[in-house]
Amino acid sequence: MTVPRTSFPTLHGRDEAHTPVQIAESVLSRQSPLTELDTVFSWFAELRERSFTEVERVPLAAMTGWRTDQETGNIGHRSGKFYTVQGLDVRVPDGPVPHWNQPIIDQPEVGILGILVKEFHGVLHCLMQAKVEPGNCNGLQLSPTVQATRSNYTGVHNGRSVPYLEYFRDQGRHHVLADVRQSEQGSWFYQKRNRNMVVEVFEDVELLDGFCWLTLGQLHQLLAVDDIVNMDARTVLACLPFAGKNLIPAFSPGDSFRSSLIRSYSEQSGTLHPTSQILNWLTDVRTREEVHTTTVPLRGLPGWYRDDDVIAHESGRFFELIGVHVRAGGREVAEWSQPMIRPLETGVVAFLVAQFGGVLHALVRAMVQPGYKDVAELAPTVQCAPGNYDDLPPASRPRFLDVVTSATAEQVRYDVTLSEEGGRFYHARNRYLVVEVAPDPQFDHPDFRWMPLHQMVDLLRHSHYVNVEARSLVACLHSLSGA
Amino acid sequence: MTVPRTSFPTLHGRDEAHTPVQIAESVLSRQSPLTELDTVFSWFAELRERSFTEVERVPLAAMTGWRTDQETGNIGHRSGKFYTVQGLDVRVPDGPVPHWNQPIIDQPEVGILGILVKEFHGVLHCLMQAKVEPGNCNGLQLSPTVQATRSNYTGVHNGRSVPYLEYFRDQGRHHVLADVRQSEQGSWFYQKRNRNMVVEVFEDVELLDGFCWLTLGQLHQLLAVDDIVNMDARTVLACLPFAGKNLIPAFSPGDSFRSSLIRSYSEQSGTLHPTSQILNWLTDVRTREEVHTTTVPLRGLPGWYRDDDVIAHESGRFFELIGVHVRAGGREVAEWSQPMIRPLETGVVAFLVAQFGGVLHALVRAMVQPGYKDVAELAPTVQCAPGNYDDLPPASRPRFLDVVTSATAEQVRYDVTLSEEGGRFYHARNRYLVVEVAPDPQFDHPDFRWMPLHQMVDLLRHSHYVNVEARSLVACLHSLSGA
Repeated sequence: MTVPRTSFPTLHGRDEAHTPVQIAESVLSRQSPLTELDTVFSWFAELRERSFTEVERVPLAAMTGWRTDQETGNIGHRSGKFYTVQGLDVRVPDGPVPHWNQPIIDQPEVGILGILVKEFHGVLHCLMQAKVEPGNCNGLQLSPTVQATRSNYTGVHNGRSVPYLEYFRDQGRHHVLADVRQSEQGSWFYQKRNRNMVVEVFEDVELLDGFCWLTLGQLHQLLAVDDIVNMDARTVLACLPFAGKNLIPAFSPGDSFRSSLIRSYSEQSGTLHPTSQILNWLTDVRTREEVHTTTVPLRGLPGWYRDDDVIAHESGRFFELIGVHVRAGGREVAEWSQPMIRPLETGVVAFLVAQFGGVLHALVRAMVQPGYKDVAELAPTVQCAPGNYDDLPPASRPRFLDVVTSATAEQVRYDVTLSEEGGRFYHARNRYLVVEVAPDPQFDHPDFRWMPLHQMVDLLRHSHYVNVEARSLVACLHSLSGA
Repeated sequence: MTVPRTSFPTLHGRDEAHTPVQIAESVLSRQSPLTELDTVFSWFAELRERSFTEVERVPLAAMTGWRTDQETGNIGHRSGKFYTVQGLDVRVPDGPVPHWNQPIIDQPEVGILGILVKEFHGVLHCLMQAKVEPGNCNGLQLSPTVQATRSNYTGVHNGRSVPYLEYFRDQGRHHVLADVRQSEQGSWFYQKRNRNMVVEVFEDVELLDGFCWLTLGQLHQLLAVDDIVNMDARTVLACLPFAGKNLIPAFSPGDSFRSSLIRSYSEQSGTLHPTSQILNWLTDVRTREEVHTTTVPLRGLPGWYRDDDVIAHESGRFFELIGVHVRAGGREVAEWSQPMIRPLETGVVAFLVAQFGGVLHALVRAMVQPGYKDVAELAPTVQCAPGNYDDLPPASRPRFLDVVTSATAEQVRYDVTLSEEGGRFYHARNRYLVVEVAPDPQFDHPDFRWMPLHQMVDLLRHSHYVNVEARSLVACLHSLSGA
């Protein structure tokens, strides 16, 4: 047949080759004509004074707006929105603990975590927000442009509208660099997901109070400081299409570690395991591992007790569920209560990394957690609260934890303590580490695989492959590329 | 630090470049020294005679081994295994029918659909099985090497072991070309998934009775015949890493349609929408569309009645749930009963395709179905049982159905009636069509996007992007590349 030819638009490459180069140039921009890095700290100090947020711990029963269901003991908001805390019965027959119960947060809404980016003087800048969250140990941290639950932006909060939200809800006129729903803490959230978005705009954007433009190179310097760049910012930064072809010449040569990291961004550098093998491995783990979770009443949850103040485990381990009352000046609503999860110790989240053939690979674990939508996700080499394992036999201790804790100073490439989500977790902090070891393929174990960054960045375009702790660490690894 | 360098294995490309070329060569092999295509039909005729399978419709209450739950009316096997039939309450507020109830099959086990491949005389051959399924309209169809539910291979069937299963359960020594869990019919199955696998072996493989080795070129010729290549074979064939770089020279030039199809396999040919835009579009649909499903008792399901024989809709439309009793000679178990879904008409499944810049694109729909794990999947342009829409206003008729039914003979590039899964569905058939239209970007609609094959093949490596009807059509499109 002869098909009549009409005019048609130009075809594009499958992926946009320019974006990774744009990202690399922003990484290498350690300074910006828009914002001096030093001023960020004084700006933070000033905002902290102005925002006068008070967070007070209150008994669970004294939380305004929240009620405990008479029958189940589950805790929910009177509006039926936001989130509920319920019980979860977990069976992992092949795990170190084959059966347990725990409280878990159920928040079925998919929120938006979005960073707006724009070129100034030819360099990509991120619009970041100084945002108070009640669970932050230091009040204010650097957040994405938009960090909104669906309740936030559909008005359940009865608060002010979310600034810049329109860029993420109506993206037609803009350039979307990343848009992917990703899971969050699988030990505390039941199948929670947020939409991680990066949107580039070409029009003028008004700079509102409490926001600033920073290059990726500047954000990377802030990632070297404890508790500044919040979890939501880190997960969005990890979803940037960082890797690409022909990236290596964009970077100036560095020492062997940094050179191997930069080679790790380029798929031309190769990988220990082709992606088909990585996918085969993960499919196999997800099919083999049995995880059975059932939501159960929070009342009478085996192993846990509830008193006036908290719900806590009888062993004194893991975490507590607490109530807080918040009085805030700089947020949508001036005063509210909410339940929060308070972990009882600072966790350890670490990648072992090694140079194979001059290409940095990280040792990734296929980790089962009860809150995942799909059995297992790719996690850091080590991700744990070490105290939780004190009563278990040595064989049940997290594999490679001892390699991390006994690393010498010169092996430790990154070591910063960062906060988890301050909207749901109270003073939840993890020590994030990158530890270099000799390239030994023997580390490959049924639950672990060495992967270069380009392979992880590739999987980060899709949902539910890389967990939130690994995404944070990927953002931290990125921060070592421009130094 | 100085990291001691040990010896390490060679790095691979992210993907194996050789595999797509190997596949292309098998596609172009229209004949094989192992099996003559003509003999497949006589072999089928002979096996049909030998397999003497009798399928008899029986009342639901007369099915051996199955029971109806007193309270819920749900139908399940006495062993608690296999699958259950229950009710589903579906709310899709923005759909043409905002609320309905229906019976649905719940089969939480992940089975294996696997094709073993091996090079003979330098050409990849697939080990195919002539397999009887009770729902097949013609008894015997060509199936993957292994087509096994978990109950099959863990012995619940109390039957013989599944031949060749060990290659798919212990893949360590072999070369895994594809391994991905994919959804099946979202209108009849509740969140069902099967593991689609292609495993290449390098060792000698015994050829058992009822199996034969065929090239992809031979399978493609069989795909031009009604009801020969079964659904399970089609979905696995669609998951082969068909696309790749530098594929174009492997094919000899053809007419404009075939040339544009072959260019469609190469990511170097470009695409109307970069993958980041496609992912953004699908994430947006999956976040925007509301689908609420609740499993409810089958007893008293609104709109449906149950008599001695069947469960059926009061309107006489959609499908029936029937019982069958099977006496088989060639299967694991000699005699059994089971409930099956019997659709009431032959459906239409069609891709509109068009050449944009000389590159064939298919018009893909983001389709909401109640049984999907994640709201929507990429579906054919048209996928429906036309009779279901007779009572609805014209605006609710499936978009583009009229373009398909009114296509001229020279627009129709493929038109074959193929069977759906014969293990659960009774005489379920769809007319699969590929219809070429002029390249008009105007077809882009909020729920539709033009995509070249390399983009679909890329997404087919991951779970839950491309639905089973679209996967069948992708296999059919592949069959047009070697002609």
